[in-house]
Amino acid sequence: MVYLNGNFIPKNKACVSVMDRGFLFGDGVYEVFPIYGKIIVGEELHLRRLQEGLDTINIINPHSNENWSQLIRDLISYHQDYQNQSVYLQITRGCDNDRKHTHSDLTPTVYMQSTPFVSKSKNDLLRGSSAITRDDIRWNQCNTKSISLLANIMYAQEANNHQAEETILCRNGVITECSSSNIFIVSNGCIYTHPEGSHILSGVTRKIVLNCANDCQILAKEKTFTKQELMQADEAWITSSTREIMPITSIDGILINGGKIGNIWTLIYDRYQELKNIN
Amino acid sequence: MVYLNGNFIPKNKACVSVMDRGFLFGDGVYEVFPIYGKIIVGEELHLRRLQEGLDTINIINPHSNENWSQLIRDLISYHQDYQNQSVYLQITRGCDNDRKHTHSDLTPTVYMQSTPFVSKSKNDLLRGSSAITRDDIRWNQCNTKSISLLANIMYAQEANNHQAEETILCRNGVITECSSSNIFIVSNGCIYTHPEGSHILSGVTRKIVLNCANDCQILAKEKTFTKQELMQADEAWITSSTREIMPITSIDGILINGGKIGNIWTLIYDRYQELKNIN
Repeated sequence: MVYLNGNFIPKNKACVSVMDRGFLFGDGVYEVFPIYGKIIVGEELHLRRLQEGLDTINIINPHSNENWSQLIRDLISYHQDYQNQSVYLQITRGCDNDRKHTHSDLTPTVYMQSTPFVSKSKNDLLRGSSAITRDDIRWNQCNTKSISLLANIMYAQEANNHQAEETILCRNGVITECSSSNIFIVSNGCIYTHPEGSHILSGVTRKIVLNCANDCQILAKEKTFTKQELMQADEAWITSSTREIMPITSIDGILINGGKIGNIWTLIYDRYQELKNIN
Repeated sequence: MVYLNGNFIPKNKACVSVMDRGFLFGDGVYEVFPIYGKIIVGEELHLRRLQEGLDTINIINPHSNENWSQLIRDLISYHQDYQNQSVYLQITRGCDNDRKHTHSDLTPTVYMQSTPFVSKSKNDLLRGSSAITRDDIRWNQCNTKSISLLANIMYAQEANNHQAEETILCRNGVITECSSSNIFIVSNGCIYTHPEGSHILSGVTRKIVLNCANDCQILAKEKTFTKQELMQADEAWITSSTREIMPITSIDGILINGGKIGNIWTLIYDRYQELKNIN
């Protein structure tokens, strides 16, 4: 069952008008909530980012946080057979009578679905993963979690074509983030990740990882790093709600730190697992 | 009547699955064909650009040019009461079973609609139009006519909020184009417009206007110009399939050349009208 504009219906019955501005213009925002058992990790942070995205593109939030929370729980309850699930929530500006770039006040379209979600085991993660790098050609408002995702999906597909987990993006020599995850490196015992701003999406898992570093008393800096610094790092990880914290051991076919998984990843990963279970 | 995946149906019955990658990712391209009576202006150029866009994002063109031409004519024939019409054609990558950034081979979704289209009269155009300027924050692949249009629609809405016709975009001091049109200036008898490349959409009307300049023996250069050069230009016009060639007489509240419509616009406009009728 999925949720569409007030109703829980089977996914194969869930249709939107061709006049929906999501379909015509990519005019909307989305969130993905990771749910372990019945625990929604980072719920408040996800709902806050949703509100910021809606504010940025001038869509009035159709629900209060309490209502969203209830809707997510209602959707989860249809899928009690899933041990863990990820809830996808998309809001578009809605349907107009005709296609025009400008818009009047419309009733937003709300779509939600849940899919079973299996996070990789620690043993799987310890095998390492590979990534490729590409120039970051995306717009200058990457902090908006918009559904206008053509650049991102092209990067994801390119990674897939190279049997890689992700595409790491580089803008003017600086590593920004990946097609659908943030990136961290460790160098001389310090953790680095690109600062917030218009060149990255401020990931919820990114925020939690920075808190984990603090909990573990490991120095972490929100500071840019170059592609060269990435390639020479002691550790590299990508983070997202569904990937959690994933070590990257090979980039563009070159091993990072000889392909070894670092100690700091282990500390942060273990702390993240603890937090998930007490959240 | 609209066209959706092989069928002509009423627009209010035209729905797509929420799993359509157009709705979820803005994963598709589009074209707009201006039709005067039964003449499709620039049909071959539009179909060529459609093919280029599909090639860029790796969607196999579902129809030959002959089939597209027939489909457009079939759609037009449902709307014989429209004197002029503009046919909107959108192709998305299609529907997957679930939402994931990567994709396998899918059957593209094809949507077409026609709307009546009234081009402004010469007398209306001679009253002049206003525009605003904004930083161009779009991606670096503006030559792909993608439906991931969030930045463009935000610019269009901002122009609308300022009672302006368009938003003119400026990247690193250079004027690129507008939210949904190209821009030309005239300076010392020479016409300038931004060269083709990743920072502008190569407009069909833009190409026709360059041909008109040649026909009229007026020097035209595909050469960048700055915002300062725009503000000090003798003439400024925007061009698109539905706007044709529209003089802009006021930018950010400042009159261009005292608000006078220039002679070169008149020559090019008249030549364009001739071509429309003999196409």
